[in-house]
Amino acid sequence: MKIVIIGGVACGPKAAARIHRLRPDADIVIVEKNEILSYAGCGIPYYIGGDINNIKELMKTNAGIIRDTHYFRNFKGVTVLNKTVATAIDRNDKSVEILNLERSEPRKIAYDKLVLATGSVPVVPPIPGADLKGVFSLRDLNDAKHIRERIRNGAKRAVIIGGGAIGIEITEAFVKNQIETHIVEARERILARSLDADMSKLVFEYLELDEVHQHVKSKVLAFEGDMHGNVCKVRTATGDIATDLVVIAIGVRPNTLLAQQAGLELGETGAIKVNEFLQTSDPDIYAGGDCVENRHILTNTAIYSPMGDTANKHGRVIANNICGGSQACSFPGVLNTMVYKYSDLTIGHAGLTEQNALEHGFEVETTLYAGLDKPEFLPSARRIDIKMVVDKATRKLLGIQLVGEGDVSKRLDVAATAMSLGATIDQISNIDLGYAPPYSPAIDSILSGSNVIQNKMNGVSHSLSPLEVARLMSTHTDMVVLDVRTRGEFDAGHIDDPRVQWMSLVDLNKSAQQLPREKLVVVVCHVGLRSYEACQYLRSAGFDNAFFMEGGLSLWQPRMIAHNQNPVPKPEPEAEPAVTEAEELAEA
Amino acid sequence: MKIVIIGGVACGPKAAARIHRLRPDADIVIVEKNEILSYAGCGIPYYIGGDINNIKELMKTNAGIIRDTHYFRNFKGVTVLNKTVATAIDRNDKSVEILNLERSEPRKIAYDKLVLATGSVPVVPPIPGADLKGVFSLRDLNDAKHIRERIRNGAKRAVIIGGGAIGIEITEAFVKNQIETHIVEARERILARSLDADMSKLVFEYLELDEVHQHVKSKVLAFEGDMHGNVCKVRTATGDIATDLVVIAIGVRPNTLLAQQAGLELGETGAIKVNEFLQTSDPDIYAGGDCVENRHILTNTAIYSPMGDTANKHGRVIANNICGGSQACSFPGVLNTMVYKYSDLTIGHAGLTEQNALEHGFEVETTLYAGLDKPEFLPSARRIDIKMVVDKATRKLLGIQLVGEGDVSKRLDVAATAMSLGATIDQISNIDLGYAPPYSPAIDSILSGSNVIQNKMNGVSHSLSPLEVARLMSTHTDMVVLDVRTRGEFDAGHIDDPRVQWMSLVDLNKSAQQLPREKLVVVVCHVGLRSYEACQYLRSAGFDNAFFMEGGLSLWQPRMIAHNQNPVPKPEPEAEPAVTEAEELAEA
Repeated sequence: MKIVIIGGVACGPKAAARIHRLRPDADIVIVEKNEILSYAGCGIPYYIGGDINNIKELMKTNAGIIRDTHYFRNFKGVTVLNKTVATAIDRNDKSVEILNLERSEPRKIAYDKLVLATGSVPVVPPIPGADLKGVFSLRDLNDAKHIRERIRNGAKRAVIIGGGAIGIEITEAFVKNQIETHIVEARERILARSLDADMSKLVFEYLELDEVHQHVKSKVLAFEGDMHGNVCKVRTATGDIATDLVVIAIGVRPNTLLAQQAGLELGETGAIKVNEFLQTSDPDIYAGGDCVENRHILTNTAIYSPMGDTANKHGRVIANNICGGSQACSFPGVLNTMVYKYSDLTIGHAGLTEQNALEHGFEVETTLYAGLDKPEFLPSARRIDIKMVVDKATRKLLGIQLVGEGDVSKRLDVAATAMSLGATIDQISNIDLGYAPPYSPAIDSILSGSNVIQNKMNGVSHSLSPLEVARLMSTHTDMVVLDVRTRGEFDAGHIDDPRVQWMSLVDLNKSAQQLPREKLVVVVCHVGLRSYEACQYLRSAGFDNAFFMEGGLSLWQPRMIAHNQNPVPKPEPEAEPAVTEAEELAEA
Repeated sequence: MKIVIIGGVACGPKAAARIHRLRPDADIVIVEKNEILSYAGCGIPYYIGGDINNIKELMKTNAGIIRDTHYFRNFKGVTVLNKTVATAIDRNDKSVEILNLERSEPRKIAYDKLVLATGSVPVVPPIPGADLKGVFSLRDLNDAKHIRERIRNGAKRAVIIGGGAIGIEITEAFVKNQIETHIVEARERILARSLDADMSKLVFEYLELDEVHQHVKSKVLAFEGDMHGNVCKVRTATGDIATDLVVIAIGVRPNTLLAQQAGLELGETGAIKVNEFLQTSDPDIYAGGDCVENRHILTNTAIYSPMGDTANKHGRVIANNICGGSQACSFPGVLNTMVYKYSDLTIGHAGLTEQNALEHGFEVETTLYAGLDKPEFLPSARRIDIKMVVDKATRKLLGIQLVGEGDVSKRLDVAATAMSLGATIDQISNIDLGYAPPYSPAIDSILSGSNVIQNKMNGVSHSLSPLEVARLMSTHTDMVVLDVRTRGEFDAGHIDDPRVQWMSLVDLNKSAQQLPREKLVVVVCHVGLRSYEACQYLRSAGFDNAFFMEGGLSLWQPRMIAHNQNPVPKPEPEAEPAVTEAEELAEA
């Protein structure tokens, strides 16, 4: 059996290696336009930042061998035609026309099964000056190498176009190298596509602390160069930014040229359309990785979600299907899961944001939960702030967003696993996760978050997000914001508004009588537990318009989460005792 | 409504706090024999080890307030009767007889609903000398305090009776304090109840490196004291051990005295029997935490699994059911999930071991997988060794065991979530987990492990565990052990046996002709990837008795995983190239 694979980065080599294992006699050819194949593209920010010293590490196998053509030919039984492009597919003839870039003669190679793993290309908008030296788009390892060279050669200022996940990863690499970093983002906030406004705000504030310049609602008009043709200025709608370096990280688009020329069907996202077995509209042609569109598990709609891990999984599924066997192997789809970091902060999300979910017609309940990753008695405990989005009709978890210095990645993967399997919040609430103090609070934050949203959906609790409170305060003049922290905490800082009133939680049963029963009352505290308690009391005493603010003032003023600051300030010695906070949210 | 709760450590206070929130008007009384309640018992090893400096941290809320009776009375609306024991339950009268330990008069308190959260007590075998000073059983915070005092006062040697999870946690605390530590275990190996032999061996070897003395198949005969009544020697069946300190950590048993006296039904495990709503045989009496038996989610049989997180979840479920609402709230059961650490090593398990599964009548497939927690190009990547147990009939994951210096806890929780939701390995294999180099390899080790066992179950691969290989080598004289690592790796060390033969993987298609086609051939390499490749080739060439060894020599000689040693030794400069290892197992 002759297998031709076009593209040698992730999906392609993975498919080749597995086909070779399943069918050691198969005749496998990989066609790759670059010299090197099967490199770890996702490692680029860590090479730029300096976590990885030699770029060759990204091209090596674990045994320290560069993945060049010999590697694949000798040890994988696969022929690699590198520095070679596929120029056309002849579906009738079942052949691919290829051209070695160092020789001039095109030639044809026949296939029984063809795999398209042509990947993606960076989106580079038609901005004047985009071809100046020092303007990069992270196309491949060469870009990474040149960026790092510029840093070594003394670049002090950088502009990143695009405030998405890759932009944030590159920001970390730059800030780590003492580079004055600017992010230019066309939308009204960074991470606008992947996080709801309440969660992206946490990242915004964290970047602010490091003096990263975030230019939002801003459009790049032109890049300007110096006399040597090096970029030196970015002209934007909101002003000029002097720079030594520009990285365009707006996103990628699927590389579908060859597929289109061959008349293969594209999907609504513009990527190659494949069925669950990863076959294109021609059943002898498979496609996987960044060039195809995926099915979103929760919405059953098409999504373009180009991820390195998905590309690898696709490669395996394609190999299984090409090699046959008793039954076809289907790829279940994706949740668009992502995790990345900026300095000590981890950002993760999977499934739908609140905004996505509403656009897809779901009626949702959401909550914000300010948790910890370990019991508070361990000095290494850190914050994890969680937003959960739940389908009101089925009570299934539809989406999760996490931001924090704590172990976000574990909770993200637990939630992604639960969502993949269609779990309801009621199921999540009692999962038997591993508990020991170095690893989690007694009730893990992901379970506590489920408990909190369960309370809300069951009508047990009544809460509003900080953004909802802010909106109400700007539209709803006649309301009370009741701060129930200790007097000491209140005096140290509170929401500066005449409608804010302090009351001791201890005496609430007496002092609540002074509150206007008909008005909207929003109770606030530090992370949302004392205010929940107070709100429960107020409701039982007939205050039907009482709500508490989710995540408390810690999410109203998210800077409090930053840089290892304890989520709950220890009360002053003379202060009256306060009820417990984050840990007891677990009791919610 | 009058609620009486007996027991104030975890389940009891959790139930009280939630009942108070759901029904602020409920009259709640907690009866607790000690002075302090709601402390973090699972934090004890970290206090002994010195991670936590002040024992009061374990008794504090996050706002720094000790959880004394005032705390609960003032801020939770709950009456706490501490230093008080419940002596009898009168179910007809619906009352509990209580006795304050500082006063002499017993009195009766009435209940509408009663909650038994009486916990567990350490098992202390009737060994002569168990009452000597310096012999502890970790009953409560006082024991922890005394152990730490002894360390401060110069204790240099300690004996831990019991090689279970708690024994390992305490071992860490001691070794950290430069104490010569001995573990005495009656079974043939440590962790015998929670890990299969192939996995407990990894922990055994790791402890050996730190010179922890592990006395297995050993029985304690007596403790001997010095002239001051301090323990100074442990007499065991295998010899005497001089010591300054003894910790008995054999396990705990449910405290069921009160329940038995009241005629409540006990289960087959000896713990209090409860239904899914956590009601005892008397529907007005609920029970939760360490005093009850749980249902195992996978076997649907009774299990005694006393865990701090479960106790907290029980408290919440009991509160929900006592407070009513539209529907009863059921507790789904447990997976007996545990995670704990020794030094840089984390140990986790959930569900059934292979041995458990066989005892429960399952026909299982298992695999060992030697993975990494991050891509190998990141210097912070660490090993995770995984054993998976799968039901052959349903292909559902039945159990997972993980040991490693890498992020074990995340993979454990993902597996526990999957098992809770009844996932098959085919489902797990494609879960859309979060991928970025600081957090995982492109195909996470938990997914790769699923792929490996899938290959095995689908007849794609043919492998044996190192223990099976060892067994075959001792019973099956006529076999070949084929080492396919590089010559340099082979010469640096290999299995010392005349049946071991080296062959280059590169020339295998030629040299394999020399192998006897009828004999059993076990191919070995470093972590199991090259040998898998070689085995695939041999099978395709008609060697129907070829197998590869799972996890390779790294699990045959587990010391190689220890103390940050790179899982794959870099080949010597002159060595011939080797194919990739751990990372490509992901391609399996």
